[in-house]
Amino acid sequence: MPAFDIASLTFDANGLIPAIARTRDGEVLMLAWMTAESLAETLRTGDVTYWSRSRGELWRKGATSGHVQRLVGLRIDCDRDCLLVIVDQTGPACHTNRASCFYTAVRAGEEVILAAPLTDM
Amino acid sequence: MPAFDIASLTFDANGLIPAIARTRDGEVLMLAWMTAESLAETLRTGDVTYWSRSRGELWRKGATSGHVQRLVGLRIDCDRDCLLVIVDQTGPACHTNRASCFYTAVRAGEEVILAAPLTDM
Repeated sequence: MPAFDIASLTFDANGLIPAIARTRDGEVLMLAWMTAESLAETLRTGDVTYWSRSRGELWRKGATSGHVQRLVGLRIDCDRDCLLVIVDQTGPACHTNRASCFYTAVRAGEEVILAAPLTDM
Repeated sequence: MPAFDIASLTFDANGLIPAIARTRDGEVLMLAWMTAESLAETLRTGDVTYWSRSRGELWRKGATSGHVQRLVGLRIDCDRDCLLVIVDQTGPACHTNRASCFYTAVRAGEEVILAAPLTDM
């Protein structure tokens, strides 16, 4: 089994790689972006840490909200340009207080909201 | 319920939006990219159609391999800058003939291959 080297991943022109977060039981929670540094931090601490493109800084998920993601598993795709993080999510993943960011369905040409905001846990 | 308008999505500077494909039972298959045109084609035909960044053209998944993805559901995320497509996948999703592109795990600093290529179905 080869050692995993973050430098072997393909980052985009901005040094970013997309990371899909899902739960153990297959709910896709969100997509966010990582840098090499944020992935290293994720692996070092076990707390999933993205790169905030809007703030231009490391973003330890849940640092302010408490809605942390503990890393359960890490997968890389065949092209080494996308990550799948399997997480134990505390509270809602979405900033709208919904479990998943993908709470809007498109059905027969209309948008349908599938989930209401959770009360904070 | 508001009508869904593709133009309401946020595409990146290249006119692309990431699309995560998963099965009905929660297996994340791949991440690829769509343009407004490819999403319109996906909704029109029910065959999931991405944008091939390498070839610079519409990419109806499985057009050459037969490993098509029939659209079961479409979700958009809170920021309207990522799509989740729920699909019925014929054959393996990955070009390596594996069910999912995410067949490599990182465990204790080493890469572990979780699945062998399937024989073609």
